[in-house]
Amino acid sequence: MFIDLSASDTGQVGLEMYHLISELYPICRSITGNGVRKSLHILQKFIPLEIHEVPTGMKVFDWTVPKEWNIRDAYVKNSRGEKVIDFQLSNLHLLNYSIPIHKKLPLAELKEHLYTLPEAPDWIPYRTSYYKENWGFCLSHNALENLEEGEYEVYIDSSLQDGHLTYGEYYLPGETEDEVLFSCHICHPSLCNDNLSGMALATFLAKRLTLQPRRYSYRFLFIPGTIGSITWLCLNKNITHNIRHGLVISGVGDKGEITYKRSRHGNAEIDQAVTHILKHLGEKYRIEEFSPYGYDERQYCSPGFNLPVGRLTRTPFGKYEEYHTSADNLEFVSSKHLENSWIVYLAVIDVLENSRIYNSKNPMCEPQLGKRGLYGMLGGEQDKKDIEMAMLWVLNLSDGTHTLLDIANRAGISFEMVTRATTALLQVGLLQK
Amino acid sequence: MFIDLSASDTGQVGLEMYHLISELYPICRSITGNGVRKSLHILQKFIPLEIHEVPTGMKVFDWTVPKEWNIRDAYVKNSRGEKVIDFQLSNLHLLNYSIPIHKKLPLAELKEHLYTLPEAPDWIPYRTSYYKENWGFCLSHNALENLEEGEYEVYIDSSLQDGHLTYGEYYLPGETEDEVLFSCHICHPSLCNDNLSGMALATFLAKRLTLQPRRYSYRFLFIPGTIGSITWLCLNKNITHNIRHGLVISGVGDKGEITYKRSRHGNAEIDQAVTHILKHLGEKYRIEEFSPYGYDERQYCSPGFNLPVGRLTRTPFGKYEEYHTSADNLEFVSSKHLENSWIVYLAVIDVLENSRIYNSKNPMCEPQLGKRGLYGMLGGEQDKKDIEMAMLWVLNLSDGTHTLLDIANRAGISFEMVTRATTALLQVGLLQK
Amino acid sequence: MFIDLSASDTGQVGLEMYHLISELYPICRSITGNGVRKSLHILQKFIPLEIHEVPTGMKVFDWTVPKEWNIRDAYVKNSRGEKVIDFQLSNLHLLNYSIPIHKKLPLAELKEHLYTLPEAPDWIPYRTSYYKENWGFCLSHNALENLEEGEYEVYIDSSLQDGHLTYGEYYLPGETEDEVLFSCHICHPSLCNDNLSGMALATFLAKRLTLQPRRYSYRFLFIPGTIGSITWLCLNKNITHNIRHGLVISGVGDKGEITYKRSRHGNAEIDQAVTHILKHLGEKYRIEEFSPYGYDERQYCSPGFNLPVGRLTRTPFGKYEEYHTSADNLEFVSSKHLENSWIVYLAVIDVLENSRIYNSKNPMCEPQLGKRGLYGMLGGEQDKKDIEMAMLWVLNLSDGTHTLLDIANRAGISFEMVTRATTALLQVGLLQK
Repeated sequence: MFIDLSASDTGQVGLEMYHLISELYPICRSITGNGVRKSLHILQKFIPLEIHEVPTGMKVFDWTVPKEWNIRDAYVKNSRGEKVIDFQLSNLHLLNYSIPIHKKLPLAELKEHLYTLPEAPDWIPYRTSYYKENWGFCLSHNALENLEEGEYEVYIDSSLQDGHLTYGEYYLPGETEDEVLFSCHICHPSLCNDNLSGMALATFLAKRLTLQPRRYSYRFLFIPGTIGSITWLCLNKNITHNIRHGLVISGVGDKGEITYKRSRHGNAEIDQAVTHILKHLGEKYRIEEFSPYGYDERQYCSPGFNLPVGRLTRTPFGKYEEYHTSADNLEFVSSKHLENSWIVYLAVIDVLENSRIYNSKNPMCEPQLGKRGLYGMLGGEQDKKDIEMAMLWVLNLSDGTHTLLDIANRAGISFEMVTRATTALLQVGLLQK
Repeated sequence: MFIDLSASDTGQVGLEMYHLISELYPICRSITGNGVRKSLHILQKFIPLEIHEVPTGMKVFDWTVPKEWNIRDAYVKNSRGEKVIDFQLSNLHLLNYSIPIHKKLPLAELKEHLYTLPEAPDWIPYRTSYYKENWGFCLSHNALENLEEGEYEVYIDSSLQDGHLTYGEYYLPGETEDEVLFSCHICHPSLCNDNLSGMALATFLAKRLTLQPRRYSYRFLFIPGTIGSITWLCLNKNITHNIRHGLVISGVGDKGEITYKRSRHGNAEIDQAVTHILKHLGEKYRIEEFSPYGYDERQYCSPGFNLPVGRLTRTPFGKYEEYHTSADNLEFVSSKHLENSWIVYLAVIDVLENSRIYNSKNPMCEPQLGKRGLYGMLGGEQDKKDIEMAMLWVLNLSDGTHTLLDIANRAGISFEMVTRATTALLQVGLLQK
Repeated sequence: MFIDLSASDTGQVGLEMYHLISELYPICRSITGNGVRKSLHILQKFIPLEIHEVPTGMKVFDWTVPKEWNIRDAYVKNSRGEKVIDFQLSNLHLLNYSIPIHKKLPLAELKEHLYTLPEAPDWIPYRTSYYKENWGFCLSHNALENLEEGEYEVYIDSSLQDGHLTYGEYYLPGETEDEVLFSCHICHPSLCNDNLSGMALATFLAKRLTLQPRRYSYRFLFIPGTIGSITWLCLNKNITHNIRHGLVISGVGDKGEITYKRSRHGNAEIDQAVTHILKHLGEKYRIEEFSPYGYDERQYCSPGFNLPVGRLTRTPFGKYEEYHTSADNLEFVSSKHLENSWIVYLAVIDVLENSRIYNSKNPMCEPQLGKRGLYGMLGGEQDKKDIEMAMLWVLNLSDGTHTLLDIANRAGISFEMVTRATTALLQVGLLQK
């Protein structure tokens, strides 16, 4: 069941992910509300996602499920009645979770509710105020500077009231109850890399995994950041012991180098698997140690759970200037990089699925490979040498204590090569589970 | 009970230490005798030191307490009756532990008892002969070369007879019997860095510790080198199991960089505490691995005791040319560097006192810091971020297995910042012991 | 029983080894046959080697002892009856294990059985076909290019029939049954470094060890590569538990730097001993991690045995262009480098023999070295300091858990210095076993 990754690299999946991102882009999402529901319904066209609704006010550990926020329209008009800020043009213009308001006020007072990015004067920043009632608008710094003195009309047609927190979940059973968790946040409005890219990758990863036999069960979570993972963990704390490996998926569409942040454990099997794949990828990459700041790995790696969950992104959040601005748009992500990320995730899954422990049936001295046709069995000269070397390593270390990943790491060769060697040795009966 | 180190840095303590050194400087100390007694009496003006007298001839492990040596006067006169070497001008002129003598002898014979430093011709070397009866004089090489042919009168009015070995001890009880040992040697005559600086620092450290609550008990030893620590260990071998941490104090007044020599254990808590403080000091420093050569850590770290005792100095002995010469004088040490060393010792004590293990009361997912006013609670932007990050680290790692020092080291932040975060979290009830 | 290695470095042993190589060089060896027997008889002039004969067809683990091959003569004649390839001039000319043949054939057909080295056109390559019946000749590429069109007469007077596999074994008993294994392969024809050098070194090492008391027993194996070690392991699998340390000896006569390949264990005592000696050798050297490719360490380190056997060579096989060619001749090895290798082997044995665990009789504080005359007991100033430091280390770490090699490594001083210190301390009764 080894995945031939090179064959996957057709560009087709990348285009489909990009297309999905384009469809999701205009929707105004938040940590609750209809934007999230609409987005999850779109994902259901690809995978049979279950949609959960958790009522406002439910206690989830130290937190409370917030009121549901919905937005219909919002603008600011100048004294001539012209819309100088218009939610319909970009949902980033509105401070996310703004309470309803409709009033007139002078520029000076309005300015206390305006947010800009002076260092990037053309871009609209993305701001939220989930846990403190407030209203406001975000706009480019240039637009701010063009505002004339005078009275402005502010209109926000939103609602903030008891309702639900909505999240999606897709559980794909495998041979065992041991599971691999993939989690992405879905609460950001028109931002592509953060995190429509993660939603798209998770969707197409899930779709792909339905097509293959699975040793592990797989669980995909599509949740609002922080409050979503806390809610899910609270509702599911009795099943988290099944989670053997996990990854937080985010920021997988930009052109930056792939970056892995280790789990709190630091050297869990997921950490070993990802770092192995990155090492043999032939591209630049970065490994970060765990820290308790970041995305939802903060919750999965809190001490009471301490799940082996890392985070696999391209450029990490906050390390690119387009982060949390209107410049994180459809031009900032590409089908090429989405597909490259998707392939890396598949390669990691391949390691998890196949890194078993075998036993050599001939532990005393080497078995005679020649008489079984295992020398020179493959094409090119170098490839022949590599596969022979890999067979010797697998035979030498298959003593009931080394996984195939351990063998690949000690030998300094790729897991793929070790898998090929293992397959050949299994075929001639030199290995057993 | 966190020590605000910056507030201590007033220069006042440094001046007091320097003043104490000046008072002790003229006294001729040795491993026994009245010079030691007089010095300890001076220290009693600052701390209620207990003075112990151990009789000559007592067996202490493989050693024997030596005869007591006292010196009144010594000189060498030339044939014209002029004093060409005079103990009254510098007690370094006399070979320490010289037996009494009064006789005339020609220059050639005298020279067999003269010691100089040709490579530093202005300086008087410091020499001893504790365990082999001998007499001699030390002088500058220039002075030696000026000696004319002729007969000389040698006069040493010393006594070497049964008496006592004298040492000082100050035990400062704390909440527990677990103790921290500070040991300095007191046997050197007019040498400032080695080790009047150590005596002064130990005295003012003890004085300071009387003013604060103490989790640990503290023991300060003022002992002659080697024979003193061996004697103390022999007399107190039944209480050494209380010693949790220890430092040998010496050479703390010169301008060189702070140098820590690890205990035999290599990574004991004292080693971790000192290296942490030095790493975050913002000054150059050096770490040395343990070796069985040096000051009294040789005895504390002998295999039968193997106490977690390191050595914290500025430039290590033998690594500065003034070492064991008349140039290790009142100009070689400064109040500024004495105080800087004292602060480093206090910072280490602060780590030892406060590096406890806590438990997060909300181990499952993060507690909500915002609703407790813990976000943005402090002044500057950077400081705010640093303290928030420190709070996240303390919450994430306070799982009953990590000390605060472990947390600081894993997070790569200062113990001080971790302590501030811990204090804030304790105040709002998010942590428990 | 410390070996004074400097005294051994007389050049005499190197000359004797070189002489032995010269005597063995013309013989055509293979993995079986009379060439091996003749070679072992020559070694019996130096050590009382036992010669074992194992019959063709015996199953040895996954392998079968092959038919015995013997060769009397072989040549290729051109149409004018001139010998253009002549086994009598170099036994490398014949594909080793060639079946008998006598026929005429045109050049084009002959060429399918000819092997050359185009990249080194003057040299004859060394080729074998042990496990697939075949015939062939090896020759320089220049000679190949001079062959004219026409008919050639091929004549190989060999036999390949049931017989025996022959190997030599020398067991030198010591104080205990714990043994050190030295293994060299003896199957190569006229090749000096690979592996007449190994045969000569093993022989003279064995000869030397008969002259000294031995804590360990020593076993020397002179075996054909791969099939020889597999056969020996199969016949002796019940005694391999006695093997505490082992080395595969090969390629020890060239001028390249000494190279050690670690055992599968990676940090067994043999690995520590060899790396220690190389570190303190004062010459460049290389350390390689274990891999399951190479000489007979492949079999000794197969998972069912996992013996602590490393490989100690000069330039490793395959890393010099003369490897497996006629250029690996008597000029490629030298008595100087043979003797240098021999001394390194002796130094390693010295560590193995002497790296015991001692206990200080005075574990509490240092014993007084001065009263036992242990200060300044030796010649030069630096040497005196070094030996005193070594004594302090041995006393400090002789706590029943550190071997002398552990002490040397932690102290960063040579095992030789530690041994000298230990001897001095034993003499005055400060240490016990």
